[in-house]
Amino acid sequence: MRTKQLRIPGPTPLPPQARQAAGRQMINHRGKEFTELYSRLEAKMKKFFQTKNDILFLTCSGTGGMEAAIVNLFSPGDMVIVASIGYFGDRFSKIAKDFGLSVTDIRKEDGQALMPEDITAAMKRTPDAKAVLLTHNETSTGVTNDLAKLAPVVKKMGKLLIVDAISSVPAIELKTDLWGADVVIAGSQKAFMAPPGLAVISVSPAAWEAHRYAKLPRHYFDFTEYRKFAEKKVTPATPAVSALLALDASTGMLLKRGLRNEFARHKKLAADFRKTAKKAGFTLFADEKFASSAVTSVMLPGELAGKTGDFITLLRDKYGIEVAPGQSALQGKIFRVGHMGFVTSKEMEQAAKALVKALRHFTSSIPPTI
Amino acid sequence: MRTKQLRIPGPTPLPPQARQAAGRQMINHRGKEFTELYSRLEAKMKKFFQTKNDILFLTCSGTGGMEAAIVNLFSPGDMVIVASIGYFGDRFSKIAKDFGLSVTDIRKEDGQALMPEDITAAMKRTPDAKAVLLTHNETSTGVTNDLAKLAPVVKKMGKLLIVDAISSVPAIELKTDLWGADVVIAGSQKAFMAPPGLAVISVSPAAWEAHRYAKLPRHYFDFTEYRKFAEKKVTPATPAVSALLALDASTGMLLKRGLRNEFARHKKLAADFRKTAKKAGFTLFADEKFASSAVTSVMLPGELAGKTGDFITLLRDKYGIEVAPGQSALQGKIFRVGHMGFVTSKEMEQAAKALVKALRHFTSSIPPTI
Repeated sequence: MRTKQLRIPGPTPLPPQARQAAGRQMINHRGKEFTELYSRLEAKMKKFFQTKNDILFLTCSGTGGMEAAIVNLFSPGDMVIVASIGYFGDRFSKIAKDFGLSVTDIRKEDGQALMPEDITAAMKRTPDAKAVLLTHNETSTGVTNDLAKLAPVVKKMGKLLIVDAISSVPAIELKTDLWGADVVIAGSQKAFMAPPGLAVISVSPAAWEAHRYAKLPRHYFDFTEYRKFAEKKVTPATPAVSALLALDASTGMLLKRGLRNEFARHKKLAADFRKTAKKAGFTLFADEKFASSAVTSVMLPGELAGKTGDFITLLRDKYGIEVAPGQSALQGKIFRVGHMGFVTSKEMEQAAKALVKALRHFTSSIPPTI
Repeated sequence: MRTKQLRIPGPTPLPPQARQAAGRQMINHRGKEFTELYSRLEAKMKKFFQTKNDILFLTCSGTGGMEAAIVNLFSPGDMVIVASIGYFGDRFSKIAKDFGLSVTDIRKEDGQALMPEDITAAMKRTPDAKAVLLTHNETSTGVTNDLAKLAPVVKKMGKLLIVDAISSVPAIELKTDLWGADVVIAGSQKAFMAPPGLAVISVSPAAWEAHRYAKLPRHYFDFTEYRKFAEKKVTPATPAVSALLALDASTGMLLKRGLRNEFARHKKLAADFRKTAKKAGFTLFADEKFASSAVTSVMLPGELAGKTGDFITLLRDKYGIEVAPGQSALQGKIFRVGHMGFVTSKEMEQAAKALVKALRHFTSSIPPTI
């Protein structure tokens, strides 16, 4: 069956306005229309990030943005704390290690969130750590860290706070300046409802200060170059122009809806979906205290464990609902349903109904494994 | 006036088919439709590159692709020869130095091309150089290097040959395997007629062998990861899906036209344009022996030197023709006219006519400087 709903946690469906903008004729990336586009996007991003910090637009995936944060702030051997609650937190740690940083790892169990005391303990073990790197919304498990509680612990110790917010902003609130997030990395392809290919990054004065002494080699991702060119409202190398045009269209829609309304809308979409799923006999993987507004991880009822792959295929082929499998150790154990960005409550109801129907169909058609 | 023709040397105008594809609804970057798209593009790129080497798709600008070639093949302190004939060759050298390579620079005068003896001489000075890095088509000056003559010199000495082909493939022929180009970097936004945001890279067995021992730190650009994921016809991180969809559409058009026809068509577009420009009193900047089929650099008649910026503005505002200024030392000295990809001979005639008219208008309206 043709895909009726792309319900993976990103890239997410595009609204017609973003599709139209992505399909526009090419423009001069050094011309007036582009510099106006750039200025508009810069101003809008400061609203989404709730920040007065500099905003940079990098042409790369979210992972490229995470790497950019690391190579721009640190020198080989620098100590950092990476606090991971899943696959993408682990990736942050991997990148830091790939670039020769001395990493103190915190790793919470999948489905759990970070506690302030986790970070305090790690900072006691590594008092010389320069920064804490963590994930705001962990797409692999469907857990959101409570940054409002975590950030003060990091800031009290005078450490830099680097936040992977790729799947949170603008679905889940992140108060960059109030909480003191020094580098925040968002992606175009999640709740921003634009095509993938852009990392949007905010950089605080303290992060710029660290950047001055950061010796890791870099060129394409060099923040200094991005800042220099940003003065003229252009980028150092040719940017993903079509993705920027689409992002301009989709962010216009989001601001019209209102940030606060968007946070509330995502919360309700998630809560309603979780309720239906539980009622139908699914088990929610993430601890509900920390359940994400952007993505929900779901387990099949116990007797069907081991059939998750088949269930994902059935959902897609029979009901046109495309969800994502678990990653790494969670492969075959969970499936993940995205509900961020361009999605209505009616669509989520339909998706939830399809899940319930598929479960019934699945239970009746698959012979028991034991 | 509204832009009638985007005649900068990239990003270039998009054909309707590519625009429609860029505006398509998002698809699952791990799903069947994507893996089929990936397989198709991989097979097509091998034709454009004339290679059996591996093809990798990186989400970044051409500069990111150049950096990827360097961080994947070398270790700090490795000796390389960078043979530059302009701004983008200089960038290659800058990237190599930023990553701690020991660079022997060859720098030809702007407007000139490399000669085999330039490379031979550099190799004598640096016999331990592991590789020669050079630009196939130098967008900043409108010069194409004769790779068929240069490559054998490099290969005879058993060095790796790394080619920035960002603005050549597929407008200008590059016989990757026959000439022995170990890494070739192309961009989506030039003659490929797709939006910017993708670097397409071919990697030879010798380059893979060098990669095994390359110690420069890397993560986002790591070829090993790209190759591992390419086996499943996906990318390690979320790719620029919309740009890939557009590239699939535009490359389909190009293959229908035929590679050989495209090379000839670009040659003729360039020759006709140069002829008209010269006849009208413009001076061609590049040595005509090496003039590019993709971009032409033009100088105003001597008495108007110093007015190039105003002329570019006049061309855009009065005639709707958007050309690019000179870069670095050539700023204010030349302007650059792109004629690659989605452009017809009729459009180039109109552009040339506009240039002639603008020159007349300019000569009559601007008081002489002396």
